[in-house]
Amino acid sequence: MPTTAEHPDRSAAPGGGSTAGPVAPTSGTTRLLPVAPGAARVEGGWWAERQRANRERAIPEGRQHLEDWGNLDNLRIAAGSHEGEVRGPVFMDSDVYKWLEAAGWEHGREPSERLLQDIREVTEVVAAAQAEDGYLDSVVQERGGAVEVGPSGDAGSRERYTGLPWSHEHYCAGHLMQAAVAVSRGTGERGLLDVAVRLADHLATTFGDGPGQTRDVDGHPVVEMGLVELFRETGERRYLDLAQWFVEARGRGLVAGHGHDPTYFSDRVPVREATTVEGHAVRAVYLAAGAADVAAETGDGELLEALRAQFAHMLATKSYLTGGLGSRWDGEAFGDPYELPADRAYAETCAAIGGVQWAWRMLLATGDALYADALERMLYNGFAAGVSLSGDEYFYVNALQVRGGSHADHERSPAGGRQAWFGCACCPPNVMRTLSSLDGYLATTDADGLQLHQYAPGHVAADLPGGRLSLAVETDYPWDGRVAVRVLEAPEAPVTLSLRVPAWAEGAVLRRGGSEEPVDAGGYAVVRGALSAGDVVELDLPVAPRLTRPDARVDDARGCLALERGPLVYALEQRDLPEGVLVDDVVLDAEGVPSDAGRVEELGDAVRVRATGRARAHEGGPSTHRPAGDPLPGPGDAVDLVAVPYATWANRGVGPMRVWVPTA
Amino acid sequence: MPTTAEHPDRSAAPGGGSTAGPVAPTSGTTRLLPVAPGAARVEGGWWAERQRANRERAIPEGRQHLEDWGNLDNLRIAAGSHEGEVRGPVFMDSDVYKWLEAAGWEHGREPSERLLQDIREVTEVVAAAQAEDGYLDSVVQERGGAVEVGPSGDAGSRERYTGLPWSHEHYCAGHLMQAAVAVSRGTGERGLLDVAVRLADHLATTFGDGPGQTRDVDGHPVVEMGLVELFRETGERRYLDLAQWFVEARGRGLVAGHGHDPTYFSDRVPVREATTVEGHAVRAVYLAAGAADVAAETGDGELLEALRAQFAHMLATKSYLTGGLGSRWDGEAFGDPYELPADRAYAETCAAIGGVQWAWRMLLATGDALYADALERMLYNGFAAGVSLSGDEYFYVNALQVRGGSHADHERSPAGGRQAWFGCACCPPNVMRTLSSLDGYLATTDADGLQLHQYAPGHVAADLPGGRLSLAVETDYPWDGRVAVRVLEAPEAPVTLSLRVPAWAEGAVLRRGGSEEPVDAGGYAVVRGALSAGDVVELDLPVAPRLTRPDARVDDARGCLALERGPLVYALEQRDLPEGVLVDDVVLDAEGVPSDAGRVEELGDAVRVRATGRARAHEGGPSTHRPAGDPLPGPGDAVDLVAVPYATWANRGVGPMRVWVPTA
Repeated sequence: MPTTAEHPDRSAAPGGGSTAGPVAPTSGTTRLLPVAPGAARVEGGWWAERQRANRERAIPEGRQHLEDWGNLDNLRIAAGSHEGEVRGPVFMDSDVYKWLEAAGWEHGREPSERLLQDIREVTEVVAAAQAEDGYLDSVVQERGGAVEVGPSGDAGSRERYTGLPWSHEHYCAGHLMQAAVAVSRGTGERGLLDVAVRLADHLATTFGDGPGQTRDVDGHPVVEMGLVELFRETGERRYLDLAQWFVEARGRGLVAGHGHDPTYFSDRVPVREATTVEGHAVRAVYLAAGAADVAAETGDGELLEALRAQFAHMLATKSYLTGGLGSRWDGEAFGDPYELPADRAYAETCAAIGGVQWAWRMLLATGDALYADALERMLYNGFAAGVSLSGDEYFYVNALQVRGGSHADHERSPAGGRQAWFGCACCPPNVMRTLSSLDGYLATTDADGLQLHQYAPGHVAADLPGGRLSLAVETDYPWDGRVAVRVLEAPEAPVTLSLRVPAWAEGAVLRRGGSEEPVDAGGYAVVRGALSAGDVVELDLPVAPRLTRPDARVDDARGCLALERGPLVYALEQRDLPEGVLVDDVVLDAEGVPSDAGRVEELGDAVRVRATGRARAHEGGPSTHRPAGDPLPGPGDAVDLVAVPYATWANRGVGPMRVWVPTA
Repeated sequence: MPTTAEHPDRSAAPGGGSTAGPVAPTSGTTRLLPVAPGAARVEGGWWAERQRANRERAIPEGRQHLEDWGNLDNLRIAAGSHEGEVRGPVFMDSDVYKWLEAAGWEHGREPSERLLQDIREVTEVVAAAQAEDGYLDSVVQERGGAVEVGPSGDAGSRERYTGLPWSHEHYCAGHLMQAAVAVSRGTGERGLLDVAVRLADHLATTFGDGPGQTRDVDGHPVVEMGLVELFRETGERRYLDLAQWFVEARGRGLVAGHGHDPTYFSDRVPVREATTVEGHAVRAVYLAAGAADVAAETGDGELLEALRAQFAHMLATKSYLTGGLGSRWDGEAFGDPYELPADRAYAETCAAIGGVQWAWRMLLATGDALYADALERMLYNGFAAGVSLSGDEYFYVNALQVRGGSHADHERSPAGGRQAWFGCACCPPNVMRTLSSLDGYLATTDADGLQLHQYAPGHVAADLPGGRLSLAVETDYPWDGRVAVRVLEAPEAPVTLSLRVPAWAEGAVLRRGGSEEPVDAGGYAVVRGALSAGDVVELDLPVAPRLTRPDARVDDARGCLALERGPLVYALEQRDLPEGVLVDDVVLDAEGVPSDAGRVEELGDAVRVRATGRARAHEGGPSTHRPAGDPLPGPGDAVDLVAVPYATWANRGVGPMRVWVPTA
């Protein structure tokens, strides 16, 4: 990777207005910068289909859900324009903001009068609920003496800021700020930004170490990211200072002071001293992402190093093959190192999204390809599985295994399939805002050139110091590993074009002008020199199906292998097995060579993978254990195993499924 | 087993007074009957030491805990004799009742003025709190409009019986009834029984299908067992009828009518239609045990058959090697079939106790040795691990694995070691009442003779139809497999003496009068004919250490073996491994032959077990997965593995531990 810390000055100063996607770093310590909104576009293939469904179905239906479940009425009640009692969990407002953020980015991708009208209407509802002094939280404003229930059954907020571990007041504020930035950058309209600024000003006055200020932190981070981005958008330094204060105040006993165990809230250890992620997974990765923003803007190398170590420990010990994060239903939490149950994986869709956000910020800050690799794994698997191919049904929990006889005893149970909405509806609008801002994760620039991190058919352009570089990306990735980058316009000066070679892509090849050279996996293939319109650089990533094994310490996957292909993890679904053969009893041939098994239109045109295996007899018996000398059931008849991308499972009905498959 | 359904008429009629241990069947459909209290006595060895610690430390300290945590004050407040607000969870009274039950049985084992005084004092506190109409629940009586928090964060009872899924009003009543029966049978005093009868009369008037009666069930079963035993003690048929009504009303939408998902509450399927256990494990097994009581008393063969199938499915798919029940922290619940994580096993101590209670009732009803086997496995492992050797510290959760780096983030975390008490203190007094009534599980009688189900040094006697049979049991079981049964007194008529041969005891031998014969494992060795004082029957159970493997479908233990010895499951603790060798990286030699490794006084004189293994290098690396072709770390240096009974783990400090050990 290029090592220069200089950048085009496009984004080098805060408050420069609508400049980039969800993250627009302003500091010279940031290694890479995002490209301008609209400068990178997904125009075909897997993600374009997901984005189309998001735009055409999820976002319009989402607004209706916000009406039906009472989120908008809560705000109207707080504004005094609607009768009744507020409904739902204390963080209901945040779903409105995430939807607004999705709509904002989506309008930026492709303007739409209908979308703009929706944004204006919902913005009005939000603005009307804001208190005189800038405070805004409809449920806390209205519910008064009502008691909110925390994870340990404790009472939460009764009035402003008295129960921050569970009241989600800053959490809602943070999502409002992110939405306001998105609407500003995506539409140019500043109505929601004004609301967010008034709230941020109120927070900056209220919280901190100063006289009369409150020393406390929200139990659910996200306000840190929101404040930094609002600083980037407005240039108001106080917002960055407050974000920094919130990050530093963490891990110093504030949550415990409310009588809660701090682990769940990422409040056991100061962020810069932590060596791992722990507790509630979404909270943990949102906090880390916000801390990465703070580190980038303040040039805090020590904090960045701590985050780097935490991310590495997460990847090495607490991440699922799917990139899913969070091993426990109990507390929706990270487990101990190597605690990675397939069946009870929580792997909340929101945690994958938070993981993407953290990875992206680490990538911008460091330029290290491992973050782009992690982001890709999360996106194509743990995130993509969270939404149906139709775009409007969601998994909250993303298990890697569902057994026969599994009983859906919860609206989040994987065995119950994806749901249109949830009582706690954090995931659906989180998916929406991620898909509508996805283009922003494709590419970055630095002073020397442009980096392509993710591959999809489309266009990428950037104004480099020497002039404009404009590229067409032609590919059928991830189904095909060939990525052709065609130069449409180039500066006269030499540029550096960097193409990510994923860690799994052993044997990748770079072709240019008739020559071909092998490139190392797990980094970037770099083309340096002058480019001209019409030049084509082709990267060939080997996406042949492969077998993957778990680390020796991963107890739950011991003796198993998984199928992968390119960035995609594969899964066996019961419906693809021969009659009478149960997923629970299938054995994979460890010596077999998996192969492609054709594309399936109803699964988003995905390539299936074929492997050889056996249908072992169900052992059964009176107990769950046997004398060691009792032979295992024989391997049984050979079975053709056809696997589908994990991201597409449960789109043809839901049934038994597994990612890790035992070997004989 | 003998098949006759006739019994000595000692217990054949209800209301016969103090006749037997915790379960005193009256119906002719019950295959076996318990012996009279005091007629079976543990007088040495493992359980005698546990009982001594229970009597000398746990029970006296328990009364103090009930003072310190407010359980007794809650009752005093309800009685109007104490100022203040009630404290703790809604089921606080039940801990008082379980403690009273323990004290009652303990007084029956060995009378004590001090204990009797304690029982009288606490009984007075309880009696004073009872309402005019018999109702009794201090927290509901006092807390008035306060909101209790259910498993889904829902509000529970605000007044009598309005929130039964979570209010535990019948649950507390059921424990009161069990305590009252124990105090009556153990001391002959009927003060507590009068309180229980008034409450039971109130319940019988209030609940049912009659005019003006309420159709509802408590979210937490136990009242079924309590009512049946109170029927047995008093002869009042209404109590049995109400227990039957509660069992039949289950699974018919009552809990769902309160807005809860019924699975957690064992209310999804009618008991007689259920094919498995599901939901909250303690609730499920308490319900099943109560249903078994109802089936026994009503001669309901269909219900008994359903319970038999449920028990079999539990053993075959939802029981840990330790007999532990409940695979999920979330909901403290049974998982799907074969969902048996070692690390996040919940295996609540109370669930093992409920399992013992259910198994005992099934054994009485059917005479099938498999229930005595299951009971023994639960007692020696999942239950025994729940209490420290000192007798006064408790595990709530009984994991089969604690990894290095595990962080105790909950008072119930195994990594935090046993605790003196809990905010939700169901387990400690449940352990106490189990240990103080343990003698009752040793033996039964039928018309033909006596059955010895569990082995411990001591005496067993019974008045058989032909006269008194009195036996001395001489053994160092479970450390030694020889059990000598010496006849002290015998009827002139022939009797049948049945000695259980556990399913693991392949190669067992029965010796009598110089002759020796092999006996089948998994049933009873039967001696038929006249016995005389001085006769000795010796059963020799092979307890050599053995290796056990999991069923092929148990994902979490795949590729692992466990060490067992007699009825005991063994565990590796970090402290017994050589310096620098981590439990997390140990590999067991699957071809090795484990052997005894001497006794350890500080571990209750337990026999340790030695096995051969290897210390594999920690694989580590950047992710939790690898290409399948990456070789696993080599097996490493040979290591002497010394394992201790699972029941004794965490008695020398707490650290990494595992039961299932990977093989190379």
